Amino acid sequence: MAVEKRRLAELASHDAFVHRHNGPDSADAAHMLGALGIDSMETLIEKTIPRGIRLGRELLLEAPRSEAEALDYLKRLARQNKVFKTYIGQGYYNTHTPAVIARNVLENPGWYTAYTPYQPEIAQGRLEGLLNFQQMVMDLTGMDLANASLLDEATAAAEAMALCRRANKKAKTDKFFVADDVLPQTYDVLRTRAAYYGFELVVDKPHRLAEHDVFGALLQYPGETGGIHDLAPLLSAARERQVMTCVASDLLSLALIKEPGALGADVVLGNSQRFGVPMGYGGPHAAFFATTDKHKRSIPGRIIGVSKDSRGNTALRMAMQTREQHIRREKATSNICTAQALLANIAAFYAVYHGAEGLRTIASRVHRLTTILAEGLKRKGLTLAHDSWFDTLTVAGADAGKIHGRALTHEVNLRWHEDGRIGISLDETTTAADVATLFDVLLGEEHELSVSSLDEEVVTKGLTGIPEACQRESDYLTHPNFTRYRSETEMLRYLKRLENRDLSLTHAMIPLGSCTMKLNATSEMMPITWPEFSSLHPFVPGDQVVGYKQMIDELAAFLVEITGYDHISMQPNSGAQGEYAGLVAIRRYQAAEGQGHRDICLIPSSAHGTNPASAAMAQMKVVVVECDRNGNIDLDDLRSKAEQHSEALSAIMLTYPSTHGVFEEEIREACDIVHQHGGQVYIDGANMNAQVGLCRPGDFGGDVSHLNLHKTFCIPHGGGGPGMGPIGVKSHLAPFVSNHIVTPIPGVREDCGAVSAAAFGSASILPISWAYIKMMGAKGLREATELAILNANYIAKRLEQHYPVLYKGINGTVAHECIVDIRPLKATSGISEEDIAKRLMDYGFHAPTMSFPVPGTLMIEPTESESRYEIDRFCDAMIAIREEIARVESGEWPAEDNPLVNAPHTMADLMDDSWQRPYGREIAAFPSEATKAAKFWPAVNRVDNVHGDRQLICSCPTIDAYRD
Amino acid sequence: MAVEKRRLAELASHDAFVHRHNGPDSADAAHMLGALGIDSMETLIEKTIPRGIRLGRELLLEAPRSEAEALDYLKRLARQNKVFKTYIGQGYYNTHTPAVIARNVLENPGWYTAYTPYQPEIAQGRLEGLLNFQQMVMDLTGMDLANASLLDEATAAAEAMALCRRANKKAKTDKFFVADDVLPQTYDVLRTRAAYYGFELVVDKPHRLAEHDVFGALLQYPGETGGIHDLAPLLSAARERQVMTCVASDLLSLALIKEPGALGADVVLGNSQRFGVPMGYGGPHAAFFATTDKHKRSIPGRIIGVSKDSRGNTALRMAMQTREQHIRREKATSNICTAQALLANIAAFYAVYHGAEGLRTIASRVHRLTTILAEGLKRKGLTLAHDSWFDTLTVAGADAGKIHGRALTHEVNLRWHEDGRIGISLDETTTAADVATLFDVLLGEEHELSVSSLDEEVVTKGLTGIPEACQRESDYLTHPNFTRYRSETEMLRYLKRLENRDLSLTHAMIPLGSCTMKLNATSEMMPITWPEFSSLHPFVPGDQVVGYKQMIDELAAFLVEITGYDHISMQPNSGAQGEYAGLVAIRRYQAAEGQGHRDICLIPSSAHGTNPASAAMAQMKVVVVECDRNGNIDLDDLRSKAEQHSEALSAIMLTYPSTHGVFEEEIREACDIVHQHGGQVYIDGANMNAQVGLCRPGDFGGDVSHLNLHKTFCIPHGGGGPGMGPIGVKSHLAPFVSNHIVTPIPGVREDCGAVSAAAFGSASILPISWAYIKMMGAKGLREATELAILNANYIAKRLEQHYPVLYKGINGTVAHECIVDIRPLKATSGISEEDIAKRLMDYGFHAPTMSFPVPGTLMIEPTESESRYEIDRFCDAMIAIREEIARVESGEWPAEDNPLVNAPHTMADLMDDSWQRPYGREIAAFPSEATKAAKFWPAVNRVDNVHGDRQLICSCPTIDAYRD
Repeated sequence: MAVEKRRLAELASHDAFVHRHNGPDSADAAHMLGALGIDSMETLIEKTIPRGIRLGRELLLEAPRSEAEALDYLKRLARQNKVFKTYIGQGYYNTHTPAVIARNVLENPGWYTAYTPYQPEIAQGRLEGLLNFQQMVMDLTGMDLANASLLDEATAAAEAMALCRRANKKAKTDKFFVADDVLPQTYDVLRTRAAYYGFELVVDKPHRLAEHDVFGALLQYPGETGGIHDLAPLLSAARERQVMTCVASDLLSLALIKEPGALGADVVLGNSQRFGVPMGYGGPHAAFFATTDKHKRSIPGRIIGVSKDSRGNTALRMAMQTREQHIRREKATSNICTAQALLANIAAFYAVYHGAEGLRTIASRVHRLTTILAEGLKRKGLTLAHDSWFDTLTVAGADAGKIHGRALTHEVNLRWHEDGRIGISLDETTTAADVATLFDVLLGEEHELSVSSLDEEVVTKGLTGIPEACQRESDYLTHPNFTRYRSETEMLRYLKRLENRDLSLTHAMIPLGSCTMKLNATSEMMPITWPEFSSLHPFVPGDQVVGYKQMIDELAAFLVEITGYDHISMQPNSGAQGEYAGLVAIRRYQAAEGQGHRDICLIPSSAHGTNPASAAMAQMKVVVVECDRNGNIDLDDLRSKAEQHSEALSAIMLTYPSTHGVFEEEIREACDIVHQHGGQVYIDGANMNAQVGLCRPGDFGGDVSHLNLHKTFCIPHGGGGPGMGPIGVKSHLAPFVSNHIVTPIPGVREDCGAVSAAAFGSASILPISWAYIKMMGAKGLREATELAILNANYIAKRLEQHYPVLYKGINGTVAHECIVDIRPLKATSGISEEDIAKRLMDYGFHAPTMSFPVPGTLMIEPTESESRYEIDRFCDAMIAIREEIARVESGEWPAEDNPLVNAPHTMADLMDDSWQRPYGREIAAFPSEATKAAKFWPAVNRVDNVHGDRQLICSCPTIDAYRD
Repeated sequence: MAVEKRRLAELASHDAFVHRHNGPDSADAAHMLGALGIDSMETLIEKTIPRGIRLGRELLLEAPRSEAEALDYLKRLARQNKVFKTYIGQGYYNTHTPAVIARNVLENPGWYTAYTPYQPEIAQGRLEGLLNFQQMVMDLTGMDLANASLLDEATAAAEAMALCRRANKKAKTDKFFVADDVLPQTYDVLRTRAAYYGFELVVDKPHRLAEHDVFGALLQYPGETGGIHDLAPLLSAARERQVMTCVASDLLSLALIKEPGALGADVVLGNSQRFGVPMGYGGPHAAFFATTDKHKRSIPGRIIGVSKDSRGNTALRMAMQTREQHIRREKATSNICTAQALLANIAAFYAVYHGAEGLRTIASRVHRLTTILAEGLKRKGLTLAHDSWFDTLTVAGADAGKIHGRALTHEVNLRWHEDGRIGISLDETTTAADVATLFDVLLGEEHELSVSSLDEEVVTKGLTGIPEACQRESDYLTHPNFTRYRSETEMLRYLKRLENRDLSLTHAMIPLGSCTMKLNATSEMMPITWPEFSSLHPFVPGDQVVGYKQMIDELAAFLVEITGYDHISMQPNSGAQGEYAGLVAIRRYQAAEGQGHRDICLIPSSAHGTNPASAAMAQMKVVVVECDRNGNIDLDDLRSKAEQHSEALSAIMLTYPSTHGVFEEEIREACDIVHQHGGQVYIDGANMNAQVGLCRPGDFGGDVSHLNLHKTFCIPHGGGGPGMGPIGVKSHLAPFVSNHIVTPIPGVREDCGAVSAAAFGSASILPISWAYIKMMGAKGLREATELAILNANYIAKRLEQHYPVLYKGINGTVAHECIVDIRPLKATSGISEEDIAKRLMDYGFHAPTMSFPVPGTLMIEPTESESRYEIDRFCDAMIAIREEIARVESGEWPAEDNPLVNAPHTMADLMDDSWQRPYGREIAAFPSEATKAAKFWPAVNRVDNVHGDRQLICSCPTIDAYRD
């Protein structure tokens, strides 16, 4: 071996993360380019992206850091955050994430890299977890059914408001009552939403509800200052007046206080965060939403339902998918896409692990400590705002200044009300010693109170903060799933059993078009569970989150450079939320410019259903722009529609590259047309992964875009959430993005309401995207995009001899995804895109996106993280399936009994000693060499969707039912 | 619901870890006691443990802490450690554990809770990992074969010395040459071992080897002060003189310097720590050991070999198990049991992930930085000890005092030689900036050296520290396993694929008798990867490890109380090492008392094979004491043997409760007899899990015991290591335990050599046991022991109607394990204990211990962590298997073709369309309801042991071979 000639810098580049993130190495890329007959990556990009919009330079980002360097740097930022003991409450509480759940769910790629469970046969694990979540919510709230989570408590409240209107069509008013003890951030989101739903909010004391003529009402229980009032009379009076009632509540309190279902609520909602999910400076956490049987068909969000598979065995699935926004489009009243599946699962597992008795004990302890605190404070002459409480006290008439000083000394955060009152919320982590410290803080150190004597006294005298009428009497969590897993060993095995039922990125590529299932690198994921990021309350003082803010600012600066916009709003906590926030910013801007009448939103016919749903929520009228045969926007139609609606044109929503996976040549012209007619241009960022480092929406005409950080920027899909959808805006829109009532955002107008409960949305997962960009650098990001495009073109090339590939650019290339047409095959063989999707499971793959954007097609997006090995394995599977279809076409296999229509095959099929099919077991379950080496087994046979929707069951089936 | 009456303390007890650690709750325990017909736990214990030795009080330990409290406390201790930048070298180096490996192997219970792969059909994943390890070692060392790891470099050197003697029987000398640049801790262990092997160590400069008449020699390459000398002439001269040569080397250096195999070494050994395994204040890490084909049958430790399964497919297994110490007993020359499987796997995955090119680049960077440092120092007039180097420089003639001050300021650790020279070892984590800091430290800040100009100069002039004759020319790591997994996605899938081939505690109970496979709780495991514990070098100054020392002291105090001994030596890093250390302490004590002639060790015939092996290594003569029909020591025989050998009696080694799983009534008497004849009592701690909190070996006659922290105290088995085997001793033995040459241990005589490379063995896993005891508390530990005993008795009760249960105590109870006899069944059906073991895999279980301590039996130990549900599931499986055997007995199934002899069944069986067996597929693979709900699949059919041993292949087979 010769003496090493490489310089240090080159020797260090071995650590470059880009080599770990990207699947193909340079030899693979060369091979794939060769297969395409294209001489270089430059040529491929030239053929694919219109010259006129290409960036033509490298992004201006710092040099990439290695994984170790990035983590070192981030650790230094993290250390600038201060982890005080926090009693702020207000919807967010400290909690102990059981270690077995933290390690085996939150920190486990087997859970966090899974996709939304649209393919239930390979998602029974997380579906069971989510069903547990629903059962837990139903039990604790006392309602008939619950969904599988929403984004946060505030948006859940907004959805509740919308449900009230939908379900109460007879009401002659558009007024909605909001109790004045609802959480301020909830009110903040409600006022944004109400403005564009055309509702008027009436804020008043809860007991004055009867004085207002409203279609619905939202009450908080317990109230935000801690009082617990018997809502039964209020709710029953409302019911008599045909006023729908929503109760925002707290799951832990419901272990002790009467469930709102028993009080007569129509909707119960709240945050499940304190069930083991770290506060994370605001999120992500799973909100819950429960309602009565009557409203089961209009409950927002996803619902997990119990159905049967083709063998008649119990099987879980997402129920009523036809309701989802991507199907009903502009008829939508909600644009919810992302849920918080990972966090809902964690909350449910927390309940599984503790069980009813555990929750009751935890709640009792929190309540006892609160009662001790209350008794001590009263004894020392302080005034409490309420004579009832669960975990929160509001103290009046104290010397806030002195207390503030002592709180700082003890590194304790309290809630400082504007009127000088002080709020203290206890939680699962509070100890007797903490209460002693709170006495010191609130009373000074000479108080001479003893927690243990107060405890003694409380028990002896039977003191409680829960009024007798409000004490809970009914049981909960009696299902075996909540009684069996008490030891860590049993819990661990349960978690692993569920994990192993699900196909995730740990098994195979998940080639979902438009979903960008790329690597979620471990180094990106590790910081989110560092306590300096995970355990901060969203409303702590700014000097405790210096590191957080710098990380967020740096990420925003990266995204500004990547998108070509001027400013980033980090609040929207899903892509759909981002769309909504962007459209609202446009409307606010136009209103400020005296153009408030503009309410037409042009949307191409190829758009994702979320676009029209978001437009509808922003009170815009959707006008559809046609596409041509090639899937491109029909510019003539655009011109004519823009002209026709010129006076009222508010915006256009475009996806780029298009949902057909093509970089349309005339994108700049399309933007110009809209601008000429006074409209704003919304570029949907769903396909940003095809652009990063090559072109920028801010350069070619966009005024605003949302960025799916959970697609392009490596936040994992979590089995159906979390996500993050920050928006980039041009400077004229910057003052009109979301503000926040509790933690105002500089540069944003005060009257702009929030779209999410927390100022920075799901802040604790932002380090993922930060780390990704920091470790990739400009060149790395560009190369990733190029490889994403190369991988897609390579797939298109390999498959086009077997399946028609729809929609290519003018030079015959696709962008980062490709669409294969199954309709001709269906005509000749009867085999549908669904059959292929299910058959792919037998080959060990998750299906591509089915029937979007074109019915009867499959849309495949490989991303840059998939290796040539994996992509070839996938193409081999698709080609083998095509050969199987040929055997159906030829009549060798009957149309109604072949490996495709019977897919997926399960162990139950194979063990069936009475196998009588026209094909063998080996072809059924082991159709490829790869499956013989490592088989992923679908847990159930094909799930019957119709059965599940017809007989909607959203609670945990009994164990016996599983056995049927 | 009534107002809560429980006091705070009781409400807080919900968090008690004991409820998570123990499987059965109180209702389960009551049920099981009922099944036994015993009225209470107290009665069960009274029936089981002889009254005369019962502790009769609770252990004196602090109140138990909750998981959160224990982790908080430990975090505070951890923060008292100082994490300086360390350049001490000396066999331990900083390293980057690739995040994907850290999270998915080191922090993944799927990897760390697995057992030693004695059942290869359900262990193919880690067997492949270990085969990769062997291949990596063979490639880098240039040797013919390698084992699957040893405990540490120093003991590997001792094993090498022993191998030299075995393999060089013709040599007329017992002298062994040790080069004077061998690592001091290696020398320290060698002197201990040599003393009891009867060898004399000759220490001299390497080039003087030819001047000594020795049977073997150990050289260090590169030497401990960093020089690289061409060993070829030395080794070839030695070979000519029939002197066996061992080379201790460094894997990273071998990426650049000539492999010892090419130089003619007979043995190459060293530490693989710097391949991604944190230093952990000394361990655990995997030592490697490679040799030539000639010595393949005498290589110590475990070897993974390639064999075939019953379908003729390639299958891996532990080769030559008949060599293992538990079989050959007193003929053993090594007592090695535990390996370092988890750490070997991590090191191998590090190589898999980096590949040859990556390792070469890392090594080149380390070397470049070292060369830059060397050039800079030389330029500034400092003297280097050598004109060759890989990563280590030794500087002479510098002002050590000043440098020491500057090092402290910069928080930098260097190596301070006693002669005033200063050692600096660079590693993978060293950057150019670090070298600049080193210039500042070594030269003061006015040096004006520039790392980048030096880099430029080094390249231009072709400077290197590796002499031309020593530069490596051959390839390595060319097998596809080392070339395919470069992207994190591919690596992750590889790790998960391997993980999912292995049955671990995440799937089912592993009821191995004598192995105590209990819960390894997440909260216990988390601290071991905190940087304050994981990244410390074992030889840092004491003021940097204040937290570590306190944790170790606290753990020692807990163990003193638990065992009844006076002192704990924390050095032995395996149980076998503990036995050896304990016997050596006895011998040293007796020698000091003028009783050095005492060399008889009494060992009951039921003993584990490690006992006689350890005794042999301590140069003792083993005299076997017979057992009676009930498996108890024959006291008459003991008396007679003790009398007969009274003059020379050194010790007895007893296991308590016995390896038959019985608390022998006369244990105290047995101890007394030995003491009366001047002997010492060694109580093997393997079965300590049956004693904790109920009786103490120090109370009933033990002078010394080792404690398997990886059994009783929750350190996971790691798929075959790590372990920890500290010893408890009575005060008279305390001065004679292991000392350490680099970091002396107070209270231990200076002339006592070490048994392990690091003073506290595998220090970084001690927090596991610390946390376990801290969280359980006295009552919790006692209850755990009681439940372990109850679980075992419940199993014995349920099984005894189906299988004869051997060996019970005088009241008909067993201790914490039970033995079922398969011999009668074999006589009637031909079904062996091995068939049952393999058939249990079809039911989803790992087999119990086979044929130990009695051939033809199964020994079952459930531990306290298994729930009644799981235990019943296991008993159901055993009973169902008994019914299957009945069908063979009755002739319904042929003796040579039934589900037992064909077990385990694999997917390959099921997909076989030509299935022609006298039983169905469903019975084969899904014999129970539980398997239908969640099936664990053996990866291969029954492995052919004979084939594998006959054709020993210990390198990775080609991919094609797997396909055969």
